[in-house]
Amino acid sequence: MGPDPAVATVRLEVRRALADLPPEAMVLVACSGGADSLALAGALAFEAPRQGRVAGGITIDHGLQEGSAERADAVVRTMADLGLDPSGSVAVTVDGTGGPENAARDARYTALDQTADRLEAAAVLLGHTLDDQAETVLLGLARGSGARSLSGMPTAFRRRTDLGEGRDGRREQGVLYLRPLLELDRGTTRRACKAMGLDPWDDPHNIDPTYARVRVRHEALPALEKALGPGVAQALARTARMLRDDADALDELAVRAYTDLQAAQDGYTVALRLEGLADLPRAVRTRVLRTAAIDAGSPPGTLAAVHVDAVDRLVTAWHGQRHVDLPGGLRAVRRYAKLLFGPV
Amino acid sequence: MGPDPAVATVRLEVRRALADLPPEAMVLVACSGGADSLALAGALAFEAPRQGRVAGGITIDHGLQEGSAERADAVVRTMADLGLDPSGSVAVTVDGTGGPENAARDARYTALDQTADRLEAAAVLLGHTLDDQAETVLLGLARGSGARSLSGMPTAFRRRTDLGEGRDGRREQGVLYLRPLLELDRGTTRRACKAMGLDPWDDPHNIDPTYARVRVRHEALPALEKALGPGVAQALARTARMLRDDADALDELAVRAYTDLQAAQDGYTVALRLEGLADLPRAVRTRVLRTAAIDAGSPPGTLAAVHVDAVDRLVTAWHGQRHVDLPGGLRAVRRYAKLLFGPV
Repeated sequence: MGPDPAVATVRLEVRRALADLPPEAMVLVACSGGADSLALAGALAFEAPRQGRVAGGITIDHGLQEGSAERADAVVRTMADLGLDPSGSVAVTVDGTGGPENAARDARYTALDQTADRLEAAAVLLGHTLDDQAETVLLGLARGSGARSLSGMPTAFRRRTDLGEGRDGRREQGVLYLRPLLELDRGTTRRACKAMGLDPWDDPHNIDPTYARVRVRHEALPALEKALGPGVAQALARTARMLRDDADALDELAVRAYTDLQAAQDGYTVALRLEGLADLPRAVRTRVLRTAAIDAGSPPGTLAAVHVDAVDRLVTAWHGQRHVDLPGGLRAVRRYAKLLFGPV
Repeated sequence: MGPDPAVATVRLEVRRALADLPPEAMVLVACSGGADSLALAGALAFEAPRQGRVAGGITIDHGLQEGSAERADAVVRTMADLGLDPSGSVAVTVDGTGGPENAARDARYTALDQTADRLEAAAVLLGHTLDDQAETVLLGLARGSGARSLSGMPTAFRRRTDLGEGRDGRREQGVLYLRPLLELDRGTTRRACKAMGLDPWDDPHNIDPTYARVRVRHEALPALEKALGPGVAQALARTARMLRDDADALDELAVRAYTDLQAAQDGYTVALRLEGLADLPRAVRTRVLRTAAIDAGSPPGTLAAVHVDAVDRLVTAWHGQRHVDLPGGLRAVRRYAKLLFGPV
């Protein structure tokens, strides 16, 4: 008799993720003790030795809840029992800016970066699922800032660690993070835990409606499912994947166009040739204009679509507008054959 | 004292929409009697004579509800009272395929096409608002088919009428439809109606939860607003506009690449050069592959992202796969320097 289907599915995804790594490269799993990352830890502990690979586990103690240190110790014991070696916890101090969720994430990733770097791990596996992805897409919707904000979480990404030069170039590339479970739903990870005899921890933060993500999970997504029928989370995840490809392609085209269109600055900070600009598809042109404004000093967080659209009208619907004011005390000016960006 | 702010806003949007039309060209408004299209009719009746323009009104009697003929007559009287001349109703028979909503829409647009053509109208104005747009984006989400399905309704589009040759080329181009209110919310059209002394009709279909759109309006969108904060409809509309630009740009690149990559078919239906394919950004390549499969005879409605992804792996992750089966009894085959599509 083979393993439970949920366990087999989680293991298969882990095997696929590990397939792209150098043989014998050490791998870490980041485990909160919740069902998703616990199922991931269980599957990694099973797969790694079959590949002759060392796999370790790490849990982060954010110090934000009563008893978090004991909780972290329990997760370390579970990981060690699974055979993940080394297994350990890192206590972090959450006091960054940008809201409690962002601060906790920053602290967590910094600790993971440092641990991965110290252990010379080839990759850190994260337990995000398709449901997390769907929530991330909906949270991105609220920003309304196009394909990139709807493209969710990537299956693989690197973080620069700024920890100095490594002997093999690994450190310069940054730490590699992988999300093997991004195509699986939470039901699968819960069933996998049960079948593996693992007892997941339910973080009370996950039902605290002061978090936007919790409201999306427990209110918005169920309402969408009710209105649109089942499969909304899957559709959102599929959408994210496609929009990520779109954003990558258009961003790359925009970078190339931006380079090609550079002109003499005439005392301004950034200068672009108008003729080539007008010929670009609007999706590429607006990305070029956004980059130009940011390069000239406009703060990315404040520069909105409405500003970019106004600059775009200097290019495509010019009837003598003198200039467009931009956040950061900047302005865009059309002059002869150029579009110029600089301080007011 | 100027007009009520809501009335001024609706009129401004109508003025902007009319600005792009030839002077003195006749314009029609499609009016259901609901608040959105009624406010639009009121604003058009005000703006058109100030531009020396003839403006008429048309309402469609779908014959789906008790008393719909009397309802249509009442809307015609209201439009005539506003000064829209000609004003009239057209009764249609709804018996098409693809669900009751699609059948009603097809019948409605066919009637609008024919009336616009008969009256030689330069454009038909439609009353869709920002709230309709937000609902359309969410309905598109359920399909999960990428940027195009999330790009909502365009502000302007043409429908081919197939009514034969016109004397000025207008008929060949098809009937032009405009949506002047796509940036305004329903609150604005309601206030505008009230200020203009117009009494909108509340279609009982608009609160009938058997319609997916009604569930999105009354359940999904409020839940999203509650989870993500106010401004979700605006964010969705902004997203739609940006994703439409993205989809336009990428579709155009894909059309060009598809043409460039054509190769000798070797007995298959469609043949593409592999080398050029592999060099394309994934967002463009998947669009090219989708077009190739559809051109070879795969039904667009059944051909899903999972099929296109499998074909893509023939290009980018080939390890000797023999072929990929596609809906419509087709298959894609990699052979030497080509990707070939044809019947099984």
